[in-house]
Amino acid sequence: MVCINGVFGMRMKENITRLGGEAVVVEDDWGAAVSLDKVEQTLKDNPDAKILAFVHAETSTGARSDAKALCKIAHDNDCITIVDAVTSLGGCELRVDEWEIDAIYSGTQKCLSAMPGISPVSFNERALTKVKNRKTPVTSWFLDLNLVMGYWGDGAKRTYHHTAPVNTLYGLHESLVMILEEGLENSWVRHQKNHELLRDGLEAMGINFLVNEAERLPQLNSVFIPEGADDAKVRSTLLNDYNLEIGAGLGAYAGKVWRIGLMGHSSRKENITLCLAALKEILDK
Amino acid sequence: MVCINGVFGMRMKENITRLGGEAVVVEDDWGAAVSLDKVEQTLKDNPDAKILAFVHAETSTGARSDAKALCKIAHDNDCITIVDAVTSLGGCELRVDEWEIDAIYSGTQKCLSAMPGISPVSFNERALTKVKNRKTPVTSWFLDLNLVMGYWGDGAKRTYHHTAPVNTLYGLHESLVMILEEGLENSWVRHQKNHELLRDGLEAMGINFLVNEAERLPQLNSVFIPEGADDAKVRSTLLNDYNLEIGAGLGAYAGKVWRIGLMGHSSRKENITLCLAALKEILDK
Repeated sequence: MVCINGVFGMRMKENITRLGGEAVVVEDDWGAAVSLDKVEQTLKDNPDAKILAFVHAETSTGARSDAKALCKIAHDNDCITIVDAVTSLGGCELRVDEWEIDAIYSGTQKCLSAMPGISPVSFNERALTKVKNRKTPVTSWFLDLNLVMGYWGDGAKRTYHHTAPVNTLYGLHESLVMILEEGLENSWVRHQKNHELLRDGLEAMGINFLVNEAERLPQLNSVFIPEGADDAKVRSTLLNDYNLEIGAGLGAYAGKVWRIGLMGHSSRKENITLCLAALKEILDK
Repeated sequence: MVCINGVFGMRMKENITRLGGEAVVVEDDWGAAVSLDKVEQTLKDNPDAKILAFVHAETSTGARSDAKALCKIAHDNDCITIVDAVTSLGGCELRVDEWEIDAIYSGTQKCLSAMPGISPVSFNERALTKVKNRKTPVTSWFLDLNLVMGYWGDGAKRTYHHTAPVNTLYGLHESLVMILEEGLENSWVRHQKNHELLRDGLEAMGINFLVNEAERLPQLNSVFIPEGADDAKVRSTLLNDYNLEIGAGLGAYAGKVWRIGLMGHSSRKENITLCLAALKEILDK
């Protein structure tokens, strides 16, 4: 079962289909969180469902879903969970063990502010047991955990599976050290406070958010493009004249929203001040 | 049809099987090149074969196969070719267009001496036509060329498929600039000359090569471990006392051969002089 409330839920479904899986879809509006009630009802209606897949932080809209509650519902219905945490890791509360997330993947280039190219992943015993008990081979040799597991755990010996992207791993290590020095919870608070700073400034200019405050990601701010503003021109002026890149809207929101990222190292007061002042200059012209 | 004369031919076969393909295997001794006669005969015996897959430079043994001749045989028998050029690119003659290689993949961390983590690939029109005409979806969203092709060619527009590993790409760019400055053919000659320097020194010490001179890769030198030498101890002494890492034997040759890489930037006279002198010191003890 896969929850779709934006581009990356659709991506999950596409990958399920490509691998020959059958996907039962729970759909929610783009810009809203995944509905707990709908998920619970759909799980009841599909008692043979084995996995619940959802996106914690929808990068396409800036909506945050309740990963803790979704995992509880899944487990109460004998499902394991696969969670897309690409944009959440480091930017907002995410407790992999406490919330009993079974399989989770993220990216290094979002709130970790590390080099793009690798993907932090985590699997608990429940997920690994499922992988070990597969009757068909994993189609990807690259991410066949049965082989990769040879690298860790008690009694792990030197194994030969792949050449690791060591330079990128060193970069990730440094970014994790920086988060450790700041404190992970402090990083979450910083992201939230900076979101509020941006929000106050944007709302003072009459610019409104796509996502309800309660379901809003601090690191990905989707706002409606003010009437009369030229979407592409504003974004290219921001980039060329102010060295600021903001994202275009996606799907049904293409041309209707801007997506302003405040992720990791870039979630800083001076960036917000610059962004607000630059937007004001461009829109006042 | 897949040719196996070492670990990486076996890897190709494994990937074919994982993806649900049926593999007809042409086997040759480890340490020998792929036999042209056997391939030709097996293709005649299997007229429904659609793809010939082989490893140009077998990293597990140091054997070089005749990619040009294999591609000709494949095309004469209505097959397209998939070529593993991980260890050949930059280290020995490889002419993708002239030899009409249809699909080819390499690695950045071998003779290009760039960062590990990305894989240069190339596809010609014949290969792309096959991809475009697939009736089943590519299982990997990651390497679905139907989507990735949106990035290049005439009339290509900005597309959104993945976040590129930009830092690693900058590193690759610099390594390609270095090869351009040296001249690609000059790089091949350097690898060959340095192989001969190593070969002369090793043979003078009574150490013999696994692969026949005619089928030998200059960048991967597999030599029999001299009688009485302690495989693991020699390798760890080389690493710890001389900062030189050489590879262990693989498969049937584990404990029987060493694999001495002379790839890219590391294919230099001073490394060979050091390696020969260090080996002599250790073996004389």
